[in-house]
Amino acid sequence: MYELLNTIDDPAALRKLDRRQLTPLAEELRAFVLESVSRTGGHLSSNLGTVELTIALHYVFNTPEDRIVWDVGHQSYPHKILTGRREGMKTLRQAGGISGFPRRSESPYDTFGTAHSSTSISAALGMALAARTKGEHRFGIAVIGDGAMTAGMAFEAMNNAGVYDDLPLLVILNDNDMSISPPVGALNRYLARLMSGKFYAAAKKGVERMLSVAPPMLELARKLEEHAKGMIVPATMFEEFGFNYIGPIDGHDLDSLIPTLQNIKELKGPQFLHVVTRKGYGYKLAEADPVLYHGPGKFDPAEGIKPSTSSKKTYTQVFGDWLCDMAAQDTRVVGITPAMREGSGMVEFERRFPGRYYDVGIAEQHAVTFAGGMATEGMRPVVAIYSTFLQRGYDQLIHDIALQNLPVLFALDRAGLVGADGATHAGAYDLAYLRCIPNMVVMAPSDENECRQMLYTGIQIDGPSAVRYPRGAGVGAAIEAEMSALPVGKGVVRRDGAAEAGKRVAILAFGSMVAPAMAAAARLDATVADMRFVKPLDDALVADMAQTHDFLVTVEEGCVMGGAGSAVVESLLASGVNRPILQLGLPDRFVDHGDPAQLLASCGLDAAGITQAICARFDLKPLEKSENVTKLVA
Amino acid sequence: MYELLNTIDDPAALRKLDRRQLTPLAEELRAFVLESVSRTGGHLSSNLGTVELTIALHYVFNTPEDRIVWDVGHQSYPHKILTGRREGMKTLRQAGGISGFPRRSESPYDTFGTAHSSTSISAALGMALAARTKGEHRFGIAVIGDGAMTAGMAFEAMNNAGVYDDLPLLVILNDNDMSISPPVGALNRYLARLMSGKFYAAAKKGVERMLSVAPPMLELARKLEEHAKGMIVPATMFEEFGFNYIGPIDGHDLDSLIPTLQNIKELKGPQFLHVVTRKGYGYKLAEADPVLYHGPGKFDPAEGIKPSTSSKKTYTQVFGDWLCDMAAQDTRVVGITPAMREGSGMVEFERRFPGRYYDVGIAEQHAVTFAGGMATEGMRPVVAIYSTFLQRGYDQLIHDIALQNLPVLFALDRAGLVGADGATHAGAYDLAYLRCIPNMVVMAPSDENECRQMLYTGIQIDGPSAVRYPRGAGVGAAIEAEMSALPVGKGVVRRDGAAEAGKRVAILAFGSMVAPAMAAAARLDATVADMRFVKPLDDALVADMAQTHDFLVTVEEGCVMGGAGSAVVESLLASGVNRPILQLGLPDRFVDHGDPAQLLASCGLDAAGITQAICARFDLKPLEKSENVTKLVA
Repeated sequence: MYELLNTIDDPAALRKLDRRQLTPLAEELRAFVLESVSRTGGHLSSNLGTVELTIALHYVFNTPEDRIVWDVGHQSYPHKILTGRREGMKTLRQAGGISGFPRRSESPYDTFGTAHSSTSISAALGMALAARTKGEHRFGIAVIGDGAMTAGMAFEAMNNAGVYDDLPLLVILNDNDMSISPPVGALNRYLARLMSGKFYAAAKKGVERMLSVAPPMLELARKLEEHAKGMIVPATMFEEFGFNYIGPIDGHDLDSLIPTLQNIKELKGPQFLHVVTRKGYGYKLAEADPVLYHGPGKFDPAEGIKPSTSSKKTYTQVFGDWLCDMAAQDTRVVGITPAMREGSGMVEFERRFPGRYYDVGIAEQHAVTFAGGMATEGMRPVVAIYSTFLQRGYDQLIHDIALQNLPVLFALDRAGLVGADGATHAGAYDLAYLRCIPNMVVMAPSDENECRQMLYTGIQIDGPSAVRYPRGAGVGAAIEAEMSALPVGKGVVRRDGAAEAGKRVAILAFGSMVAPAMAAAARLDATVADMRFVKPLDDALVADMAQTHDFLVTVEEGCVMGGAGSAVVESLLASGVNRPILQLGLPDRFVDHGDPAQLLASCGLDAAGITQAICARFDLKPLEKSENVTKLVA
Repeated sequence: MYELLNTIDDPAALRKLDRRQLTPLAEELRAFVLESVSRTGGHLSSNLGTVELTIALHYVFNTPEDRIVWDVGHQSYPHKILTGRREGMKTLRQAGGISGFPRRSESPYDTFGTAHSSTSISAALGMALAARTKGEHRFGIAVIGDGAMTAGMAFEAMNNAGVYDDLPLLVILNDNDMSISPPVGALNRYLARLMSGKFYAAAKKGVERMLSVAPPMLELARKLEEHAKGMIVPATMFEEFGFNYIGPIDGHDLDSLIPTLQNIKELKGPQFLHVVTRKGYGYKLAEADPVLYHGPGKFDPAEGIKPSTSSKKTYTQVFGDWLCDMAAQDTRVVGITPAMREGSGMVEFERRFPGRYYDVGIAEQHAVTFAGGMATEGMRPVVAIYSTFLQRGYDQLIHDIALQNLPVLFALDRAGLVGADGATHAGAYDLAYLRCIPNMVVMAPSDENECRQMLYTGIQIDGPSAVRYPRGAGVGAAIEAEMSALPVGKGVVRRDGAAEAGKRVAILAFGSMVAPAMAAAARLDATVADMRFVKPLDDALVADMAQTHDFLVTVEEGCVMGGAGSAVVESLLASGVNRPILQLGLPDRFVDHGDPAQLLASCGLDAAGITQAICARFDLKPLEKSENVTKLVA
């Protein structure tokens, strides 16, 4: 089946192949990617698009001595397969298995871990300059998509790189006319113009020809060019940044790719190769709908992806529904996404409210301040963003939003552990990094309906607020169509522990941890408070819990260090109360990819883990069976 | 003296002036800026450069209905003076006085608070789109320097803005060929080419003329242009982003500025006006050395700035000296700054080690990941950055550095309150936002020598570390030339409280708070620990302090919420110890500008405030006099 591919255990073996063998190898590799991803789930469209480019890069360059950095890394499966991880693909994104992204600890061919967008040029430039400092000659190569090029960070790196006239640095723009969603912005328009490549070539040739028949003008042009290189003949934006621009070339044509890369190896200074590929290339269903096939679960390649039959709504859907309902009743509401329309559940919102939908590109910094600008004019912007990606807009959140106390609502998806995507995508730090900021209101819903009401609450607040909710489905709570604001800074008691002698433990739970806390409490006959607000914290409820219980427990799906539990402790200390407190949450290490439930359990954040931790810490014993379930409040 | 200027209490009065009066007004305004700043201290060079531009903008546009956003805001004094704050300039940057930056609460003409770089286009775009949504017609105007244009955020905003073909948005590039330091990067080279404006105009005209004499080519060109607009005639990068590029024009010539702005008012779609100004214009000393006159203290305009005679070294100088010494003995060390050579104390390092000095432009995101790339190749990068600006690279710190456990040392200057620059520049959150990140080592020196040794310690650690030190001079400690690594995660007891009966209070102090804690302890006969490490925390020392004292106090120049004090509490709770603990630090509000010592005192972070807080909380009385000073340890 994979006759050629099975002989390639590393790129050295690849480089021994005859040039003519690469085309059948590409066929095998593409088939292998499709088969493999259909069995494990993972990223598909982008990997089908980089088969030939990956082969060509490892064939021409001396990897791992030359350093390839895969931007985002969605497209690195062919690279993994060719660099000794063919068998490993069976364990992709599973606990103990290989990562869905490049990872330094996994292979010397993974020179830089990626996952968040647009870091590759910075990293490759750092590598190239370090090599130069050490007197070593090697290429730094960044492979970056057209979507990732819209992030400012990529431009910062281009601006810095362009002045190193003799550096062996190669930036490959993998232009598939896509982010995860269709791309937006001026750069995309510009690339589309470059893509009509014939015109570019013709225009360039046309001017040259014209100049050759008009000698005096040629002379003028030469003089001008001395002083203003690139201004008389059309220069691409990338040349203006100091790169030598080559392309666009067909990224599925090895006969273009290989000689071009071979030529580039001989050139000096920063090179920019514009490669045109197609997401999903070679698998018709993915070509037709690259968004659907961006990151599928398991599926039958012959039949394609079947519509999900899950009846439970995800939090993402809860948000999407709420945004539409909210926008329908409040014309001030606008929705902003940094290129995550699908992931953030905004497809329907865009359809219904196109004039109030803003996809700003992969541009988290801009997204936040742009929302701030809108807020100054009386709008109520909702920035839908993953917890992990808000890290990119942290300064803007502090400096442009919170400092000016502007009413911007942050809908933070993927808060907590995220499963298969692993540590790079975990939303582990938001509670710590948000609650230290003055003026912020930070909420964490325990179920779908609370999420909806919290989002509504956020819109009513005359300042910045955030609702952080986990990846995937919630507990299956009924969602009320009516929206009503929650009292800001107030939690609720969900379960009252034994009223008599044994009223010992109160669990102060945040967001997604309310459900396992309830289950643990049933075994311990403990009280459970759904704290709802991380900031402002319900100081009165905290004081009351301390007064009426012997032991307090805080539990959150976020880092313990500086998180919501610390807020509870600070509150108690500020009022001079001492109680034995157990703080449960994510540990002080990066949590790997794997099954979401198992990951939580491994951190002690399921009912069993919470029960066990409480018993161990306070020397208690769980009840034989959960006879106290009837005591559930609400 | 200021005959005309004294009549201008708002831009409406300005707009009533005859056009010919504007030139003398500019002279008065420039003189006023110079006189005013020389008396209060503040930003000078950039404000002298924007006198004419400010007059022209308020003269032509209908402010405040049209919205001007001043990027960074270093250049907004002429704007403040013309918008009703002429008298207020006497109180500039002083407690209770006006801010050195635009500020929404100060004036309706300050449409968006700025101070960190490169936010203006995002904000102005948000404003313009909000106006469109509301059916209002007004201009969104961003005034941005060429330094600020290198930050990725500006490009993110340009990319987003360029597609709104009919939006009244104006970006004015105030090109003075400067950041605070001389500018770097490819964009600067590019602007220099545009600045040789004659060439640009000549090239454009040349092509047009050529086309007119070669009809068949003209026909071809027209056809090409239909499909590839802007490719046959030289287009600027800004046109490629969808803006209409106008310029460059002389930003000190009102006869250029006013008609150009008047024309722009009639145009549709995003406009990009390239204005060339000179930092320090009109004051010869500042023109000659705009860096020195960027942000001076008080001085005599006739004599100019005198060299500082202060004998105490600032922490910035301690860092700069250390970096040179370190680089001299370890060739792996490289220094990276995001355009803050002077502010971060790297002038001498650049002079001595030019090949290992990297000014990457105003590009904090890139700076961090670039350092990561270098670290993967065995270098030991030192990123010198203000605490407040590391917020811009937060995601990169987590995702590219800490997750990969790369040895990058962050030298965090301006940690804590910063005085005259105010809340926008305060380094209040770093302890909270850094300590929650796995793998980080976070240090806070109590004096200059400890700072030096901590920096050395950071370089020895095989992972990410940060040393955060305050603005200005330290306590005046003698600095040892020899460098030796401190034991990681170990604090030291600086003062032992009364060994006998009264051993009640232990103050666990971090960084700059060790000194006032010592003074407070003398009055209370308390123990003081210099904790040194926020992470890893010295758990053993914390436990020991708890065991041997009745009351614990934590004190830090950073936010209480989630900060170092919370780390102490977490440590105690994890080991099941309960003690009354008082957490002192910065409050949960943005602290305004003012005198640094007074600001600290207002937050209770001087010796008196610490003493008072401890006494109030634990019902103690200070000693009549400090008879226990002799008990000082070390």
